[in-house]
Amino acid sequence: MQDSEASGHSLVSSDDVVGTEVYNTSGEHIGAIDHVMIDKISGKIAYAVMGFGGVLGIGEEHYPVPWAALRYEVSQGGFVTDVTPEQLENAPRRDDGWYGSRDWEIRTHDNYGIPYYWI
Amino acid sequence: MQDSEASGHSLVSSDDVVGTEVYNTSGEHIGAIDHVMIDKISGKIAYAVMGFGGVLGIGEEHYPVPWAALRYEVSQGGFVTDVTPEQLENAPRRDDGWYGSRDWEIRTHDNYGIPYYWI
Repeated sequence: MQDSEASGHSLVSSDDVVGTEVYNTSGEHIGAIDHVMIDKISGKIAYAVMGFGGVLGIGEEHYPVPWAALRYEVSQGGFVTDVTPEQLENAPRRDDGWYGSRDWEIRTHDNYGIPYYWI
Repeated sequence: MQDSEASGHSLVSSDDVVGTEVYNTSGEHIGAIDHVMIDKISGKIAYAVMGFGGVLGIGEEHYPVPWAALRYEVSQGGFVTDVTPEQLENAPRRDDGWYGSRDWEIRTHDNYGIPYYWI
């Protein structure tokens, strides 16, 4: 991850986002970014799909979290999020078509209290 | 790459964008997407960094092309671009700080005739 804020840069490589650690606001490590979901029409990142738990990728759970729920903190070398364990627990389940379901997207953004990225 | 247009989905995984082939409007294969550059402030994809030529990654040249210069074509299973060899040849050279230089970004977008993503 580039030290972007410090140097005035605002561009980061997808290579530097994927695999980057995520912390809660208490500084505790809660997971890492497995991949991101891109809205092809607008070119915006819609979700960071975070991996939590598991060992060597086995048993790891994946949660799509709205991209706007994450911010990069140079001092920690990773992303920080206000997302709570309760929000993750209550997040709408994903079915096969989740990434094409606006209904799922609305419920997910409402769950995390994040404005819809498509408006 | 998900068959997104056909199914009404507009979200794709970064895993499906990276490595996806790129064709010109004549259907000729011209390269592949090596990674994308993300504007952290807006969450928008700013550039697809395309790799051209080379064998097994050796001698391959990388060119950042504005994301809006690419469109996904379900029928070809890849991205199609109007970018010409002349535009690639004339693209502003990258120096170490290219991804933090608005001047470089303006010249690059002007070269490809693509509206600035930050406006």
